[in-house]
Amino acid sequence: MTLKKLKEEVWKANLELAKSGLVIFSWGNVSGINRAEGLIVIKPSGIEYDVLKVDDMVVVDFNENIIEGTKRPSSDTATHIELYKNFPEIGGITHTHSAYATSFAQACKEIPCLGTTHADAFNGSVPVTRFLSKEEVEIDYEKNTGKVIVERFKNLNPNAIPAVLVAGHAPFCWGKSASDSVKNSVILERTAFMALNTLQLNSKIKELPEYILQKHFSRKHGPNAYYGQIKK
Amino acid sequence: MTLKKLKEEVWKANLELAKSGLVIFSWGNVSGINRAEGLIVIKPSGIEYDVLKVDDMVVVDFNENIIEGTKRPSSDTATHIELYKNFPEIGGITHTHSAYATSFAQACKEIPCLGTTHADAFNGSVPVTRFLSKEEVEIDYEKNTGKVIVERFKNLNPNAIPAVLVAGHAPFCWGKSASDSVKNSVILERTAFMALNTLQLNSKIKELPEYILQKHFSRKHGPNAYYGQIKK
Amino acid sequence: MTLKKLKEEVWKANLELAKSGLVIFSWGNVSGINRAEGLIVIKPSGIEYDVLKVDDMVVVDFNENIIEGTKRPSSDTATHIELYKNFPEIGGITHTHSAYATSFAQACKEIPCLGTTHADAFNGSVPVTRFLSKEEVEIDYEKNTGKVIVERFKNLNPNAIPAVLVAGHAPFCWGKSASDSVKNSVILERTAFMALNTLQLNSKIKELPEYILQKHFSRKHGPNAYYGQIKK
Amino acid sequence: MTLKKLKEEVWKANLELAKSGLVIFSWGNVSGINRAEGLIVIKPSGIEYDVLKVDDMVVVDFNENIIEGTKRPSSDTATHIELYKNFPEIGGITHTHSAYATSFAQACKEIPCLGTTHADAFNGSVPVTRFLSKEEVEIDYEKNTGKVIVERFKNLNPNAIPAVLVAGHAPFCWGKSASDSVKNSVILERTAFMALNTLQLNSKIKELPEYILQKHFSRKHGPNAYYGQIKK
Repeated sequence: MTLKKLKEEVWKANLELAKSGLVIFSWGNVSGINRAEGLIVIKPSGIEYDVLKVDDMVVVDFNENIIEGTKRPSSDTATHIELYKNFPEIGGITHTHSAYATSFAQACKEIPCLGTTHADAFNGSVPVTRFLSKEEVEIDYEKNTGKVIVERFKNLNPNAIPAVLVAGHAPFCWGKSASDSVKNSVILERTAFMALNTLQLNSKIKELPEYILQKHFSRKHGPNAYYGQIKK
Repeated sequence: MTLKKLKEEVWKANLELAKSGLVIFSWGNVSGINRAEGLIVIKPSGIEYDVLKVDDMVVVDFNENIIEGTKRPSSDTATHIELYKNFPEIGGITHTHSAYATSFAQACKEIPCLGTTHADAFNGSVPVTRFLSKEEVEIDYEKNTGKVIVERFKNLNPNAIPAVLVAGHAPFCWGKSASDSVKNSVILERTAFMALNTLQLNSKIKELPEYILQKHFSRKHGPNAYYGQIKK
Repeated sequence: MTLKKLKEEVWKANLELAKSGLVIFSWGNVSGINRAEGLIVIKPSGIEYDVLKVDDMVVVDFNENIIEGTKRPSSDTATHIELYKNFPEIGGITHTHSAYATSFAQACKEIPCLGTTHADAFNGSVPVTRFLSKEEVEIDYEKNTGKVIVERFKNLNPNAIPAVLVAGHAPFCWGKSASDSVKNSVILERTAFMALNTLQLNSKIKELPEYILQKHFSRKHGPNAYYGQIKK
Repeated sequence: MTLKKLKEEVWKANLELAKSGLVIFSWGNVSGINRAEGLIVIKPSGIEYDVLKVDDMVVVDFNENIIEGTKRPSSDTATHIELYKNFPEIGGITHTHSAYATSFAQACKEIPCLGTTHADAFNGSVPVTRFLSKEEVEIDYEKNTGKVIVERFKNLNPNAIPAVLVAGHAPFCWGKSASDSVKNSVILERTAFMALNTLQLNSKIKELPEYILQKHFSRKHGPNAYYGQIKK
C-alpha cells in the first residue's frame, strides 16, 4: 500500500471512529502502519473530527520523527509506536475513552469473556495493565504506556486478543488495519457494556465454557472460519 | 405467499431490524418461512444491512440446501431450521445480540414477568436454555443450538412465549411473520432493560400477579382481544 | 375551546409524545378534555404515531360512548375518564410505558423527591398504587385502574403531583392540557432515571429538605412564581 | 471583546449546550462576562433553545440590573453573578441538570478522580456543597447558592477544578469563556457517567494515583502543555 493510500485509509478510519459515537470533541485517535517503509500515519493532536482533512494526517517513523505533515501528531503517538514495534502483525491501532470500556479500566478490572459476542472478537478476557510507576509517568509517559501494555501481553497473543485496558486510563485496540482496529473498539465497548449488566444481574456468573469460546472465535477467525462470504 | 413475496418481506424485516438499533455491523439475522413449499428465506452471512439487497436473500430447504441465491446463508441457518421444524405455527425468526436481552442470556437468568409491558407480549418468563455440551458444540453446533431451545420449550408454548435466551449467547425471537419476530425482538429488549432496572431498585420484587399477566396477554392476543382496531 | 381545536391539540400532543422517545410502536396515548361539553378526545387504539391523522382522534363522553370518529378509542380510555371525573382541574392525560418510570412501577417503589429537578415539577414523591385485585382486573379492568389511582390520591393533591405509578404497570401523568401532560411525562422519566442512579450511588440518601422542595415548586408553580417570562 | 460580540458568543454557547443533549425544554443556562465593563450576558428565563435569538440574551450588571434586553434573565442569574465576583479569572458559566452529574449532586457525593479522562479536565475530585439552610433558601436563594459554592471552594482553585455539584440540586461549570464552560459541562457529565459505572464494577476502587492525575492535567493545562496544536 502506498503512503498516500494509507493516509486516506487512516483518515477514513478516524471518521468512522467519530461516527461510531465512541469519542467526543477531539478525543481518541487512529493510526495505521506501512510495515515495508516503517512509517506510521496518525491523527494530529487536538483536531476535532468534523474539520479533519486527509492532509492533516501526520506521518512519523519509529523514532517519532515527522516525515510528512504540518501538524503535531497525536500526543499518544509514542504509545502507538511501541505497540507496532512489539506486535509485528498488527496494521492499525485505535485509542478511545469509550465510556464502558474506560469504566472497566478505571475499576482496574479485566473484561471477562461472558458470552459469544465477546468470544466472536476476543479469545479470552480483555486484560488490564498495572499502573505506571511515578518514574514511568514522569519521563517518556506515552512510550511507557506502550511498554506496560506489551509487558501485560507477555503470555498473551495480541492477534487473538486485539484490545487492552490501561489501568486508570482507557482502552487501546488494534487489528489488521486502521479500520479493523476501529471495529474492534466498537465491539469492545459493546462487550464491556454487556459485561457490566451481566455482572449486575449475576455477580457470581462464571466465564463462558472454554469450548464455546473457542468455537465462536474460530468460527470467525480460525483457519476453517465459516462466518461471512467466501473471500475471492 | 409466493417465494418472491416472502423474499421481499424477509428483506424488509431485516432492514427493520437494522433500523431498530438492536444490531451493529452485519450482526443478527431474520428469516421467514413458506410452509406450503417447505422453504425458508434468510439473510446472507456477514453482509452489512446498508448494502443488503432483496436478491441477496438466500432460500434454503429443511436440509440446508440452497434453493435460490448466490450468497452463503446466515451461519445460524441450522438453528432457524430446527425451530421451524419443531414450532409448526411460527412464520418468522429473528436472532440478535441486543445488549440487555443478551446480558440476561450471559447471566443465565430468565427474564421474569415483572410488569404488563412484558405480559402484553410474553405469557410468562422468557426462559434461558442450558449450555450446550462440548460434543454438541463441536459437531453441528448451530443445529444443536436449535435443539436445546426446543428442549427448553418441552413444557412451554412457543406461540405464547415467542422468545428464548440461549445461555452465554443471546436471544432468538419468533412470531407469525418475519416482521412480527423483529417486533418481538424489540419488545424483548425493552422488557429486559426494564427488568434489569426493576431488579436493581428492588431485588426482592415478585413476579406480576398471574391474573394481571393473563388479563394483559389475552387483551392483546386472546380470542376476545380488544386492543387495536378490528381487523377487516 | 372548540372540539375541532381540542382534537388538533390532542393530536399534536400525541405526536410530541412520539417525538419524545418515551414510546415505541403504537404504545402510549394522550387525551384532552373539553369540560364545558363533557367530551374527551383520545388517541385511537393500536395506531402507530407516524400514520396518525387528526381525524383518527376519537371523541368520547363520560360513559365511553363514541361521539365522533370512526376508530376504536385507546383501550385505556376508561382509565382516562375516571381520572377526569375525579380530578376536576386537569385538562390532559398521558399514559406511557417509559422505561425508567415503568421500572419504578414494576418495583412497586415510589419515586422519592431527591432533588430540585423533581421538586420543580412534582410537589413530593410520585406515589405508586396498590395492585388491583383479581375481581378488579376481571371486570372493568381499565375503569378500576382509574379507581385505584384516585384511591391513592385520597390525601394527595393531583394538581401538585401530576403523576402516578400503577403497580406492575406503568405511569399516568396529567396536566393543565394534553401537551402539559406530555411534558410531565418527559420530566417524570428523567426524574426516575436520576432517582435510580442516585439510589445506586447512595442507597441511604434522604429526601430533599422540605424547604428546598417547596422553594423550587413554588418558584415555578406558586402564586409568586418567578421562573420564565411574564405571561401577558 | 465588545458587548455585541459577547452576546453572540453567549448565544452560540447556549445553542451548543442544547445540541450537547445535556438539557431538555428550556432547562439550563449559559452566561459570559465582559470584565472590563462589569457586564454579564445570560440566557433569558424559560425560553426554549430552538426559538432562542441572539437579541433575547439579557445583559445585567453585578447588581442584577438589566442593562440591555427585553426579557427577564435566567432565574439563576444571581448565582452566576456571585461566581463571577469571587472567581476573578473565569469568563463563562454553564448550569445544567445533566442526568449523571445531577445524580451525584442528589446523592451528595463528590465525583472522585478515577481516571485520566477526569484528570484531563479537573485537577481533583469535583466537590459537592452543603445544603443551603432554611434561611438561605427563603431569602436570596439564588445568591446564596452562589455563596455556598464559593464557600466550598475556600481551599480549592476554581481554575483547576472548573465544576461543582450543588447538594440536592445540580452542577455548575465554568471556564475561560462561555463556550469553554459548556465544554466542561459535557466532560463533567461523561466523567460522572464513568464514575458511576466504575463504582458499580468496583466499589472499593481508589482514586487515580496523584502523579498520574498531575501528569494528565498538566499535559493539557500546564505551562508546558503539549496536547493539541501550538497556538499561534
